[in-house]
Amino acid sequence: MTPQSTAADVRMACRNGKFTQPTPGLARGFVQANLVMLPADWAYDFLLFCQRNPKPCPILDVTDTGSWEPKFAAPGADLRTDLPGYRVFFHGECVDEPTDVKDYWRDDLVSFLIGCSFTFETALLEAGLPVRHIEQNRNVPMYRTNIACRPAGQFHGPMVVSMRPMLPGQALKATAICGQFPLAHGAPVHFGDPAAIGIRDLLKPDYGEMVDFKPGEVPIFWACGVTPQAVLMQAKPPFAIAHKPGHMFLTNLHDRDMRG
Amino acid sequence: MTPQSTAADVRMACRNGKFTQPTPGLARGFVQANLVMLPADWAYDFLLFCQRNPKPCPILDVTDTGSWEPKFAAPGADLRTDLPGYRVFFHGECVDEPTDVKDYWRDDLVSFLIGCSFTFETALLEAGLPVRHIEQNRNVPMYRTNIACRPAGQFHGPMVVSMRPMLPGQALKATAICGQFPLAHGAPVHFGDPAAIGIRDLLKPDYGEMVDFKPGEVPIFWACGVTPQAVLMQAKPPFAIAHKPGHMFLTNLHDRDMRG
Repeated sequence: MTPQSTAADVRMACRNGKFTQPTPGLARGFVQANLVMLPADWAYDFLLFCQRNPKPCPILDVTDTGSWEPKFAAPGADLRTDLPGYRVFFHGECVDEPTDVKDYWRDDLVSFLIGCSFTFETALLEAGLPVRHIEQNRNVPMYRTNIACRPAGQFHGPMVVSMRPMLPGQALKATAICGQFPLAHGAPVHFGDPAAIGIRDLLKPDYGEMVDFKPGEVPIFWACGVTPQAVLMQAKPPFAIAHKPGHMFLTNLHDRDMRG
Repeated sequence: MTPQSTAADVRMACRNGKFTQPTPGLARGFVQANLVMLPADWAYDFLLFCQRNPKPCPILDVTDTGSWEPKFAAPGADLRTDLPGYRVFFHGECVDEPTDVKDYWRDDLVSFLIGCSFTFETALLEAGLPVRHIEQNRNVPMYRTNIACRPAGQFHGPMVVSMRPMLPGQALKATAICGQFPLAHGAPVHFGDPAAIGIRDLLKPDYGEMVDFKPGEVPIFWACGVTPQAVLMQAKPPFAIAHKPGHMFLTNLHDRDMRG
């Protein structure tokens, strides 16, 4: 699997058990998505949570109850098999990391596909802006904040943000670009002082890895797609499935379709 | 009630029974919203329908089940009393048009506030563009199309569009302006030949009133907030409440907040 593969190539390689690796940089130009599968009796609260918090939780597609086909984002795909890795949760505890979830499938499941920062990172790179964790081949640093999400039913918790260091002029350019992608977290939510949004130690991200700053760069913070998973795990639904971190679902949507 | 009233002024006058008239042009600058109230067991399908059809059904706020307060769009407001007019439906049939729905309230109701074209019409007027039905003091002409909405559970049906005549240059300017308001139906969905979207007779709108064309003007079509009501009534839920047409809910949101 390469940057030149199509989304369908990647999905088929996953389905055939031939590809089980992380997906960043693959099938360049195709939108990658976070996956959450929940029993139908938890789906309304989760859908409402996403509706109330569109910056961290931009919904790309929701399947019909009991269907594994995302008819809008990738007609014909099978969400049980077409990701390179999954995590299975009982009562908020991860119990398995399989490469397909056919054995865990239930007819009451609803699948949510949620936008991912890979979309705007491609646009930033194309604009000549730095994406440090890609340069340094690390995972992006992510932090829990004191920015409260709007609660919905059983789901509540703080927004998780991702951080990218940039010069002020670059940050302003990045803001204009990311603002065009409301379904991929949109414009940043904060820049500068980490303490202003409740981050105690910038050097110690809650998720991912720290990256290096160059002289004059300031931290720029974006709403992050880890938010819905953090909120979900805190709510401890009896059963849930998610993608394995970094092992995203490749949709047929193009990055350019995500422009607002 | 005047263009200079605040949204809170209008809501209070409705609550006190002193105002029962249509709301176009009132409290200029405050976002007006369509209202749909449904029993909780119908709420998931309706929320999913709106999520799948954001152009005709842009959601501004959804209350918690059993709450009449739209905490995001107008904290402290009471959706049972703060609109100038309501329609009450049993099995898709309108049985009453009261000025409050306190007597119909049920603890299992969920209220949806959906964006309205008044927001972009204000922006069009401010840009010096024609809004013919306002000039002619008529209701906007609306049409059922052959553009299928994406179905969700029990909800399915065609998109309803509104129509405004403009010169081509004006239409392009209007497209740029409306595109900035994704929560108020956004850019048009079609222009020119009505038959191309299944409209048989432009002179006979399915809802509202026809307006006059000036030389050189072409019909421009926008996704319309009547769509969710048409789809809802076709699904015949056992119980539902909506605003009386033209008698909208005044939110505390400002038109400028609706820019994407």
